[in-house]
Amino acid sequence: MSHPPARPPRRADARHNADKILDAAVACLSRNADASVSEIAQSAGVGRVTLYGHFPSREVLVEAALQRVLAEGEKVLESLDLTGDPRHALSVLIRSSWLLIAQSSAVLEAAQTALPPERVQQLHLKPAQRVDELIHRGQATGAFRVDLPPDWLTSVLHHVMHGAANDVAAGRLDRTDAPVFITETILAAYAPTGR
Amino acid sequence: MSHPPARPPRRADARHNADKILDAAVACLSRNADASVSEIAQSAGVGRVTLYGHFPSREVLVEAALQRVLAEGEKVLESLDLTGDPRHALSVLIRSSWLLIAQSSAVLEAAQTALPPERVQQLHLKPAQRVDELIHRGQATGAFRVDLPPDWLTSVLHHVMHGAANDVAAGRLDRTDAPVFITETILAAYAPTGR
Repeated sequence: MSHPPARPPRRADARHNADKILDAAVACLSRNADASVSEIAQSAGVGRVTLYGHFPSREVLVEAALQRVLAEGEKVLESLDLTGDPRHALSVLIRSSWLLIAQSSAVLEAAQTALPPERVQQLHLKPAQRVDELIHRGQATGAFRVDLPPDWLTSVLHHVMHGAANDVAAGRLDRTDAPVFITETILAAYAPTGR
Repeated sequence: MSHPPARPPRRADARHNADKILDAAVACLSRNADASVSEIAQSAGVGRVTLYGHFPSREVLVEAALQRVLAEGEKVLESLDLTGDPRHALSVLIRSSWLLIAQSSAVLEAAQTALPPERVQQLHLKPAQRVDELIHRGQATGAFRVDLPPDWLTSVLHHVMHGAANDVAAGRLDRTDAPVFITETILAAYAPTGR
């Protein structure tokens, strides 16, 4: 090291760096599931040595990023009442957390190539259940169409939210329009077929 | 060069290599818009020197990959009659070319960071027009909803097709189910709102 630090790093600095690295990891992995450790370090404004001091491998870093984004989503989702009319519950879910869910599913995509499948499943089980349950309940009560499988309905929700997040990032879609457009689109796509 | 070739490369070999490289570029860039030249060379099974012999820069390679995938799409699309009922025309469009369009839009995403915006617009103008015109005609004739902007309807189509292509690649969705599910979902999402 040609430039030794002026003072030894304090615990608060270390925590701050770990936070910055995780924020950068979530942002980079959302954009590109194959983002490298160097890209993430650069985006966080820290050196690779500092990054590896906190997260000894890409696998550990991806898992921590996934845990972080899922925990943030959980904080929002657990405050929502999703027990009423499934169409209303779905609107509430989208409006309150579309961007967080879009980020989570992008980081999840990255985790699927970086972590063992059981680990990903285990981490993602609870958040995924909330959406799965809502879709199943909607199909069971006739609020949502049943001519398409529930897994596909879940996928469509994620594809549209993820695509909209990219549109917003690229300046093609207004951030305040996004949740309204997503909700209107998904409610129509999920509506029972009575043509 | 430590291993000179046993014989000078013939024109047919060169053409074959260029084809392999372009196929690999389309596949790699569809999966990851930031795919590097090394990744593409590796996936094509050629060395970087061979790749650079055909495509002197990443920019040239990305442009050639975009032209290839758009030309393939064009070949399919120009054979379709999209002048009838917009809902029927949209079904025909999706069933015949969802995978090609999904690949094109992924490579287009890559091109948007690698090429000058005017160049991308110029290359993409004609294929994009076909979908745009269909959506505008559907809105004008009352076949499609008008409470959401046409650009968003186009985006939704691309997001769902692109997501479905990833689902198929990851083994989460059957390749033969995909066009049926996409069509049913998009027709419902585009239907005029009469609630």
